Amino acid sequence: MVNPPRGFLFNALSAGIKKKEDLDLGLIYTDQLATCAGVFTTNLVKAAPVILGSKRIKTGRARGVLVNSGCANACTGEEGLKDAEILLQTLAQELNCSADDILPASTGVIGERLPLEKILKNIPKLVQGLSQAKVDLVAQSMMTTDTFPKVVSRTVSFKGGEIRITGLAKGAGMIAPNMATMLAFILTDASLEAQYLQGLLAKVVSKTFNRITVDGDTSTNDTVYALASNKVALDQKVWELFETKFLEVCQELAYLIVKDGEGATKVVRIIVQGTHTEEKALVLARTVANSLLVKTAFFGEDPNWGRILAAMGRSGVDFDPNQVDLWFNQVQIVKNGLSLGKESEKKAHQVMKNKEFTLTIALKEGKAKATILTNDLSYDYVKINAEYRT
Amino acid sequence: MVNPPRGFLFNALSAGIKKKEDLDLGLIYTDQLATCAGVFTTNLVKAAPVILGSKRIKTGRARGVLVNSGCANACTGEEGLKDAEILLQTLAQELNCSADDILPASTGVIGERLPLEKILKNIPKLVQGLSQAKVDLVAQSMMTTDTFPKVVSRTVSFKGGEIRITGLAKGAGMIAPNMATMLAFILTDASLEAQYLQGLLAKVVSKTFNRITVDGDTSTNDTVYALASNKVALDQKVWELFETKFLEVCQELAYLIVKDGEGATKVVRIIVQGTHTEEKALVLARTVANSLLVKTAFFGEDPNWGRILAAMGRSGVDFDPNQVDLWFNQVQIVKNGLSLGKESEKKAHQVMKNKEFTLTIALKEGKAKATILTNDLSYDYVKINAEYRT
Repeated sequence: MVNPPRGFLFNALSAGIKKKEDLDLGLIYTDQLATCAGVFTTNLVKAAPVILGSKRIKTGRARGVLVNSGCANACTGEEGLKDAEILLQTLAQELNCSADDILPASTGVIGERLPLEKILKNIPKLVQGLSQAKVDLVAQSMMTTDTFPKVVSRTVSFKGGEIRITGLAKGAGMIAPNMATMLAFILTDASLEAQYLQGLLAKVVSKTFNRITVDGDTSTNDTVYALASNKVALDQKVWELFETKFLEVCQELAYLIVKDGEGATKVVRIIVQGTHTEEKALVLARTVANSLLVKTAFFGEDPNWGRILAAMGRSGVDFDPNQVDLWFNQVQIVKNGLSLGKESEKKAHQVMKNKEFTLTIALKEGKAKATILTNDLSYDYVKINAEYRT
Repeated sequence: MVNPPRGFLFNALSAGIKKKEDLDLGLIYTDQLATCAGVFTTNLVKAAPVILGSKRIKTGRARGVLVNSGCANACTGEEGLKDAEILLQTLAQELNCSADDILPASTGVIGERLPLEKILKNIPKLVQGLSQAKVDLVAQSMMTTDTFPKVVSRTVSFKGGEIRITGLAKGAGMIAPNMATMLAFILTDASLEAQYLQGLLAKVVSKTFNRITVDGDTSTNDTVYALASNKVALDQKVWELFETKFLEVCQELAYLIVKDGEGATKVVRIIVQGTHTEEKALVLARTVANSLLVKTAFFGEDPNWGRILAAMGRSGVDFDPNQVDLWFNQVQIVKNGLSLGKESEKKAHQVMKNKEFTLTIALKEGKAKATILTNDLSYDYVKINAEYRT
């Protein structure tokens, strides 16, 4: 049972947006104006809630987040924007706050309108049931192809106080390279200024949600909101610790998203090191992580390093193939671009039988490095995505 | 039965490079010096035969092509280069020609050395069995995950003569964006200069083999060779017809490669039109063609146009999402970025039940267009690639 940050109330219900009677509408509400920040998809095609949310976030103040699954409200044009606005206005009336202070987020099928009547009918009930205890329900209401809700909490204790941080996320497929098809809400009761929170969120997202990839696609709806309810003054001495815990919450959520990647059977940490720049290491790691041939080899537990080198070779960055070393966990299988033989490959195969392992790719140019979390490509990925709308 | 161009002899046998007793070593030989040209992978990691072949091609003259499947001779370093050179030298002695005039090509697993002894032992037999009739055997000997050999022929008839063009290809997975994991040899008995042939080949490859994509990966071994045996003078009047037929041969081979894409159940022609530049249309078409979410939707026969727009949105090129129209064959399902409703989607679903269909994406900026051939992503793609080396 999560002890959520003070000042936040939660509720979720089934409004009939999804075909089944699963939770599909969630609300996070603060008892007073909160500080807020947001990071959004870089996709040129932006869903209505992304368009509205990115405007709203500029004030730096919010009272809550309305989230739905089952319908992305993307590619719905002017009508979709109106739908979202009507929804927020109705909710704001019920909450007796300004509609501008509610941040919207949607996930689900693209190209379909929200079933507005169904949702509006449920708004009073959604508001009436708000309570501190229902954070897990909101996490459930965000799920699409997720197989489990994702909630992570951390506490920062200091003399005379305690700060809580709780993160909720959804995400499974389409997670790359910029937070694709994921929603995450990071809540804290620390007292923070909007400019600081925006800076922290942007920095942390670039190190966490932007370092994971499931299938290389990027969604129209990706949104990360951070809300601070300003209940606890942040002691200067624990400032650094707070940032670390905030990062940890996002790191763990990012990990859970990859772990729950559509059809994934393995989580693979890809480290590229020994480059001149981090940027270059990132490009290499991402290209390897998104290669279908590499991902199917992960699934097959085959240390097919040739595919890894081939993916690096098409990444567009320059490197010397004869200076590449490769490890699966501690087992080195390639030295200076050449195989270390069948025995080392057999050992690497054993490593790959684990549900989690690390692939380390070392160049010998410099001291920069980058890490990407990814997973394998299984039959089930195809099944889930072939049948998504049926 | 193909009538191959005059001046070419063929043979293929099983040298034991593959685990099964399939054909895995092929030879194309010309009775006199031929004109030659070549186009190679753009992958930074280049296989030994690509390194040797791209040097050899510079003379513009060759006597033949030695091809093997089962082993790519890639990521094998200096040793791999020596292996390939020894092979070519031994073959040249047997053929009584210069080793510099034999063009090498390999396809198969990366990172493993060629089983040199096995191959050398079979060289005399390979040479002794050369005949005009065995072009199909060579096509078979190039196959890896291919399910059928790919041979296409065209004839250019004119007053006083006839020119033959025959193309052989292999390819199945990893076909993008630059001829990945494919080998193709285009043979003709026309009399051509090397410079012209190189220009023609480069132009045609950019319009055919570089316009197909199976999984977005790019191989270390891609090679297209063109050989002209100079038996028939090319009448000025049929020059244009010759170029058209040459293009047709490559077009049809490219089509066959996509059709035989690993696990593919559908061939999809993606046309992006109405852009300012062809380049932009190409980037959009490639991004859509390589999207896993789009490819699994093709497999599921789901006209999930939201995924198509989302893929376009992350392509990095600028366009107005509210100016996009979409068709599956003649069925329009999106107008100005919005759905035309469930009825049109049902009709599009019917279209997608076909083994081949066209997805047309129209912008309204200009008059440029580009076409990419691709296929769907099925369970079998995962299966084939997870188990490739086992």
